[in-house]
Amino acid sequence: MKFVTGESRKPATYQEIAEGGRNNSVTVHGAVHLLRDMGGLAFLILRMARGTVQCVCAPEILPEGLCEECTVELSGTVRDEVRAPGGFEIAAESLTVLSRPAAPMPVSLSKGPLKLNLDAELALRPAVLRHPRERAVFKVQEGLVRAFRDYLTGEGFTEVHTPKIVHAGAEGGSNIFKLNYFGKKAYLAQSPQFYKQTMVGVFERVFEVGPVFRAEKHATPRHLNEYTGLDLEMGYIGSFYDVIEMETGYLRYAMELLAREYAPELELLEVELPGADRIPCLRFDDAKRLAAEKYGYRIRDPYDLEPEEEAHIGQYAKEEFGSDFVFVTHYPSKKRPFYAMDDPEDPRYTLSFDLLFRGMEVTTGGQRLHDYARQVAKMEDRGMDPAGLESYLMIHKHGMPPHGGLGIGLERLTMKLCGLDNVRYAALFPRDRSRLEP
Amino acid sequence: MKFVTGESRKPATYQEIAEGGRNNSVTVHGAVHLLRDMGGLAFLILRMARGTVQCVCAPEILPEGLCEECTVELSGTVRDEVRAPGGFEIAAESLTVLSRPAAPMPVSLSKGPLKLNLDAELALRPAVLRHPRERAVFKVQEGLVRAFRDYLTGEGFTEVHTPKIVHAGAEGGSNIFKLNYFGKKAYLAQSPQFYKQTMVGVFERVFEVGPVFRAEKHATPRHLNEYTGLDLEMGYIGSFYDVIEMETGYLRYAMELLAREYAPELELLEVELPGADRIPCLRFDDAKRLAAEKYGYRIRDPYDLEPEEEAHIGQYAKEEFGSDFVFVTHYPSKKRPFYAMDDPEDPRYTLSFDLLFRGMEVTTGGQRLHDYARQVAKMEDRGMDPAGLESYLMIHKHGMPPHGGLGIGLERLTMKLCGLDNVRYAALFPRDRSRLEP
Repeated sequence: MKFVTGESRKPATYQEIAEGGRNNSVTVHGAVHLLRDMGGLAFLILRMARGTVQCVCAPEILPEGLCEECTVELSGTVRDEVRAPGGFEIAAESLTVLSRPAAPMPVSLSKGPLKLNLDAELALRPAVLRHPRERAVFKVQEGLVRAFRDYLTGEGFTEVHTPKIVHAGAEGGSNIFKLNYFGKKAYLAQSPQFYKQTMVGVFERVFEVGPVFRAEKHATPRHLNEYTGLDLEMGYIGSFYDVIEMETGYLRYAMELLAREYAPELELLEVELPGADRIPCLRFDDAKRLAAEKYGYRIRDPYDLEPEEEAHIGQYAKEEFGSDFVFVTHYPSKKRPFYAMDDPEDPRYTLSFDLLFRGMEVTTGGQRLHDYARQVAKMEDRGMDPAGLESYLMIHKHGMPPHGGLGIGLERLTMKLCGLDNVRYAALFPRDRSRLEP
Repeated sequence: MKFVTGESRKPATYQEIAEGGRNNSVTVHGAVHLLRDMGGLAFLILRMARGTVQCVCAPEILPEGLCEECTVELSGTVRDEVRAPGGFEIAAESLTVLSRPAAPMPVSLSKGPLKLNLDAELALRPAVLRHPRERAVFKVQEGLVRAFRDYLTGEGFTEVHTPKIVHAGAEGGSNIFKLNYFGKKAYLAQSPQFYKQTMVGVFERVFEVGPVFRAEKHATPRHLNEYTGLDLEMGYIGSFYDVIEMETGYLRYAMELLAREYAPELELLEVELPGADRIPCLRFDDAKRLAAEKYGYRIRDPYDLEPEEEAHIGQYAKEEFGSDFVFVTHYPSKKRPFYAMDDPEDPRYTLSFDLLFRGMEVTTGGQRLHDYARQVAKMEDRGMDPAGLESYLMIHKHGMPPHGGLGIGLERLTMKLCGLDNVRYAALFPRDRSRLEP
């Protein structure tokens, strides 16, 4: 018989040691990142949850067979050492091995950046994510998500959790995974669209962080078949610019949080944080025209925006306005789903937007139809049967405020922020056409 | 051409009005929750994002055809009114309709608790979640998730996002959904088990909040086929009691956060918050024996714990120790998955636990095998082929610290906290054998 009271042992962190006093006794744990015998003394680099620390060990305290990726507990004294990374080291007094690997790492984690091709790296991900540079990407990613939640909670949003097994796709098209659900046909959610709109009728402002599934067949450096969506939806908007302002506020907040609390990772990855104080908005047709004029190419399709064009518009925003971000507004109606609100001034276009970050789409959003009759009419115009989406249309039928929202692709945001050249590097265990493991 | 700067319009909230000064002019928005003509004056109850406010309107400011579930913007003066809920009301000076419903609500949202049976209520969920009591459950649920993240972030955990489409199930058995993934066989993740363990090798302490899929065929008041898992995994533990202490710390923190910031919802739902300062831990075999002795029944299966027995053990903990929570430790090895660490003192049992809350399992956790040879041996003992889980075993092969973790079922925790009699009421849009919509 025993009682617990929630008193957790909180080990000393890298930050506490780095910023704490010198000549303090500390006990730390971590993995042996690098072990080097310097004749008489051993230098051991300990990989902690965040950061690596140089430890100097006399031979007599080194357990037999100590090797890299052993996990250890180590006690010693912190002292200044200008030649060590961080300007300090631990003079170890005792060292206990907690566990030993069965085989050495397939590649070195301590000799600079990994030099593996994409396939090789992703196959070894469970092990090579331990590399300080690799894991730094996902620490930064954590910051982007923390900022999303904290900012929106402060703005009066409620977090929701909506089903990923659904009876109908929100985005239409063929890029949807099918599932046998106890003998019935079901799908994996392409977005939380219907549900987040539903929850605007309940909480006015909601957000969700969760997986999104797209059965895209093309293999590109910017597509994943499963990604993490940062979704928000808000009621009582005056126009879709309220949604754009909310995203801008989030981006500012996120960059401030990263600068304040994720400096070690940003430095390691050599990330330059983008400014988000003042983001230009260009209409879709203007953006296409301005970029084509400036960079001297012909517009192929006035109703579509290809990846190359996104890159040109991003370059335009950078050169003309000094901005890494640019909102492209008023997308053509035929490129947007049935729930998008058309622009009453020109119904060929919608009250919607994408956000481009360093030349790549990272967000899609806009105002939604809230009026029942108009929503039904638009579905019928498109040859859809409203009866198939009765439970979604229930919200329009019983009254919805004017509302809009957006979905951010977390991995793309991370990719562009960290300067990665393939979105797969921004997912811990990416899913693509040929990759289901690890 | 336009620039945005992230300046969001933040509407006045219910709390600001309730706690703000009297005789202030305010502009608010919301849905018309109830409209009552009192002969000469109209009383309008406005449903805001949180809370409902009585507004008094002279007939001349009432737009024609105003009805319940219209959404409106309303300006007026706040004044004391003892007869109004909250002790104040708004004397409306102007009222603008923002949207109108196409049909009245199927049931009243303003006449006390919904009196619908389960099927009827769930079919109408998109509309009836607007009921103040219904939505209060999910506001409380938000608090449980916020507390999980905030507490663990403070304890040095990193949040991760791991794939839900997987090549192998973590829990074994037949309760797994199958999927055709570009011609390959894939599954929906039964838990983030393999991935969160993997991430312990990277960040030492990690957590994830995400969907979990179980193709359970039985229809019970405590099972869902898709639920939200609150998962954590931590390295460098001294024993599985470190995991138990972490959960206890979380529960304390969560109850404090709820008491501090969710009082209106707790009051509406008449929730009594459980104490979590001191939680008893009973061994599985002791717990079974003590409850059977006290309540006078025979133990049917010494290696299993049925729902009725969980209820008895919960009652025992309440009566003997005054605790709504009880940890049941040392589950039989044959009831635990292949990655569970057996108790070296008696390998028929494992170093694992469940948490029972008011007589129902809401958490499963324990210490995991970290040694490669032992993990492979246990798989072989169970007739499993280690080659099928090579990418998972990579982490053991290349070294893992002693570690353990747990998974909490968010809906069950919400259900028992809010005193609901079916877990479906604790999911916005529950998934069960027969329910795929809404």
